[in-house]
Amino acid sequence: MKKALIVVSHGSRREASNEEVRQLAQQLSTHQENSFEDVSAAFLELAEPSVPDGIMAAIERGAEEVTVLPFFLSAGRHVTQDIPAEVDKARRQKPDAVIRIAPYIGRAPEMTEIVLRLAKDHR
Amino acid sequence: MKKALIVVSHGSRREASNEEVRQLAQQLSTHQENSFEDVSAAFLELAEPSVPDGIMAAIERGAEEVTVLPFFLSAGRHVTQDIPAEVDKARRQKPDAVIRIAPYIGRAPEMTEIVLRLAKDHR
Repeated sequence: MKKALIVVSHGSRREASNEEVRQLAQQLSTHQENSFEDVSAAFLELAEPSVPDGIMAAIERGAEEVTVLPFFLSAGRHVTQDIPAEVDKARRQKPDAVIRIAPYIGRAPEMTEIVLRLAKDHR
Repeated sequence: MKKALIVVSHGSRREASNEEVRQLAQQLSTHQENSFEDVSAAFLELAEPSVPDGIMAAIERGAEEVTVLPFFLSAGRHVTQDIPAEVDKARRQKPDAVIRIAPYIGRAPEMTEIVLRLAKDHR
């Protein structure tokens, strides 16, 4: 079963910022703990590919199971409404594919430790 | 030397999303690894307090050293321009205070592991 991971970010007018998310996907794909055969980035707005296009591309590259991870820190409208709506577009086009939405990254319990470490190291 | 940490987020029209950031500040303040006497949240837009107001309030509560941590995942305009500009407003009002800007949270090297763990656990 070929599995794909798609990291979904908002998208920025500043291309360096979109590139940062694509680089994260690249880092993930070669990470020693990675178990996804295909890792890519997609964007809600202002950058390519869109979420449905990113999902379709992963499926066309052979993915049978796609996990969409919202790269957002809080559960605003983008996480609660926009990403599910975009994922539904892809589901309608590929009803046989298994497409899941993982928790948004801000929900990870490690966030508090990371904030404290970054803030402390910088003092 | 009384130290304050201010977690700065974008701010959302969805109040639950702002409240999530305030709750994070609350969790940080009681975290066992926390070394800041004062932890609070501030927002660039759409929510209160603003970054300068949040900094001024921490100083008025007795902070002599303020660390501003951008709670953003990528180095877009908000991180590279808006937060430094907001911090400068506070510096002009309180030239004697030590106010630092920590790295934005997206720069933490732990991000890759967190993405992989959340995505994998959810499969």
